Amino acid sequence: MRDHGLAALLLTTEPDVRYFTGYLTRFWESPTRPWFLIVPARGKPVAVIPSIGAQLMAQTWIDDIRTWSAPDLSDDGISLLADALAEIAYGGAVGIPDGHETHVRMPLADLDRLRRIANLTTDHGIIRTLRMVKSQPEIAKIEAACTIAGRAFARVPEIAREGVPLSNVFRHFQMLCLEEGADWVPYLAGGAEQGGYGDVISPASDTPLSKGDVLMLDTGLVRDGYFSDFDRNWSVGPAQPAVQDAHKRLIEASDAAFDAARPGATAADLFTVMNPIVTDDAQGTGAGRLGHGLGMSLTEWPSLIPTDHTVLQPGMVLTLEPGIALGDKILVHEENIVITETGARFLSPRIGPELPEL
Amino acid sequence: MRDHGLAALLLTTEPDVRYFTGYLTRFWESPTRPWFLIVPARGKPVAVIPSIGAQLMAQTWIDDIRTWSAPDLSDDGISLLADALAEIAYGGAVGIPDGHETHVRMPLADLDRLRRIANLTTDHGIIRTLRMVKSQPEIAKIEAACTIAGRAFARVPEIAREGVPLSNVFRHFQMLCLEEGADWVPYLAGGAEQGGYGDVISPASDTPLSKGDVLMLDTGLVRDGYFSDFDRNWSVGPAQPAVQDAHKRLIEASDAAFDAARPGATAADLFTVMNPIVTDDAQGTGAGRLGHGLGMSLTEWPSLIPTDHTVLQPGMVLTLEPGIALGDKILVHEENIVITETGARFLSPRIGPELPEL
Repeated sequence: MRDHGLAALLLTTEPDVRYFTGYLTRFWESPTRPWFLIVPARGKPVAVIPSIGAQLMAQTWIDDIRTWSAPDLSDDGISLLADALAEIAYGGAVGIPDGHETHVRMPLADLDRLRRIANLTTDHGIIRTLRMVKSQPEIAKIEAACTIAGRAFARVPEIAREGVPLSNVFRHFQMLCLEEGADWVPYLAGGAEQGGYGDVISPASDTPLSKGDVLMLDTGLVRDGYFSDFDRNWSVGPAQPAVQDAHKRLIEASDAAFDAARPGATAADLFTVMNPIVTDDAQGTGAGRLGHGLGMSLTEWPSLIPTDHTVLQPGMVLTLEPGIALGDKILVHEENIVITETGARFLSPRIGPELPEL
Repeated sequence: MRDHGLAALLLTTEPDVRYFTGYLTRFWESPTRPWFLIVPARGKPVAVIPSIGAQLMAQTWIDDIRTWSAPDLSDDGISLLADALAEIAYGGAVGIPDGHETHVRMPLADLDRLRRIANLTTDHGIIRTLRMVKSQPEIAKIEAACTIAGRAFARVPEIAREGVPLSNVFRHFQMLCLEEGADWVPYLAGGAEQGGYGDVISPASDTPLSKGDVLMLDTGLVRDGYFSDFDRNWSVGPAQPAVQDAHKRLIEASDAAFDAARPGATAADLFTVMNPIVTDDAQGTGAGRLGHGLGMSLTEWPSLIPTDHTVLQPGMVLTLEPGIALGDKILVHEENIVITETGARFLSPRIGPELPEL
């Protein structure tokens, strides 16, 4: 902040507020109320939040908690926030995350009003830079989530077989995640079609699994506030050689990226290692990237794309997510790794090249 | 739009985009990519979205789908969006939701860039007004979600008893919701302490349930893209008379609001009916409101507060959520109703005044 002439940061989203406070609640699901955290250049953060959150915030290390009874239709915390900023920043510049992967979680009319009172500017990527490198406790939490997901994936043969509707598989897989220790399951996507699937973001249809389908489940489950994010594929009955080969190449690609992942390599380097293994198109295909950061959010900085030259550092947690086209279908494989001092370590249970059969 | 001189609306959030398209995916959990929908004053909506979503969007009724390979670090869809707005709005005013309960889901730096190119202004509350009154199919979906939640709540005695850690209850309750037909469970909060609980937004602790605790579970589960949002309370062992009485008064309050709920009454009226039953404080206590709208989001417009004079109309779906203080603890009860032509109808399975015992 000092380098950028910032007197404070203003944070408005769940992960950013939690990063500095430990304030963990699913109440952010409600879009009604804005929440604010001021992180001064010196001193402890100050929470400016709806009164409904005061008791829980008081259980964190934050002691300056200013509340209003939200929703307030005439002034939903803006005057309270402006006063706090005036007191803390003395008219100095207040950085707000404004780059890729961010948004400001407050009504635009209120943001415009605040901009007329306070000296808001960019956070110069400070939050991104901080959150991108995980502490050992953070890595342990992500690994715990990955271990739970790994156990749930290992039990998929209990719930998925020919004739079971995909929507049932989705429902029961979430139950397995919970049974194995997930606190909640914010994300599940996947597909099951003949020889692949159409995309990786669709909700489940009620179509029953049938012989020749490739089933893919991609979950982001949360344990103690941190995400896992990886997927697994299965063939319903024996897989065609082309499908087996595609899966083999996906594993080859993620293994190659794992081998290349070390401090000093870049996000783009990992793309460059994986991409020729899965496609002839130098720009990649489909999803737009071959992996990303992971942590308090399902997806975080950086992106494994040709233009992201973020230099890998020990403590960064990444997904390796190569995809391959197979006719008009795709197959996608995903693993989670952490960058270490000397290379990388798998956080998800690394799998072999064989596509398992259901 | 014509009344307000708008050439188009620009939408950026999951429920707003889905409202006009039917585009349903949990992929919004990833904060990486912005998504845009342009709703012109005449003609069909136009989607300007990351290529990863093209296939799924093509399954909706939208046929003008413009994509870019996101994330693009130099231009993450902004030029594509600006060109589309120029073509569709011809420099006319483009309304963007900017009031209470909204935010703009795109990076602030990109929004500022877009504002310099396009003529962005308020949506004058059009989206709020539209979404607040539900169609019959929407009401049926919400009711289906409520029925599932009701069945899960009825089975809580299977999973909750003295000695069971609250975190286990939370995990197993989510499994019950899924088993009973939830597609996913975006929200669960609650508490269990002696004679009440401290707040209603905390995640679960590992503390075992003990005699004299009041257990509360408040869930927002999703079925086919629509939420339920109600809670239930139980006493672990026999409840103290004061706790029984508090629960009785909560039911009395929600029943009174139900009786008052009809076209022509206001959101404030329902607050005014409930509040004197649960507190002597005319402004209410704690949570800041005694209920809210419900639908594609866990919480929607209006708010049951003294200052919200929204006039109830047939098709509005509301939660009635009175809370009562009991020493330093609270008890909260919540039901879901729909406003009909002549009054209101319960969507959640209405319960009686007795606090059930585990």
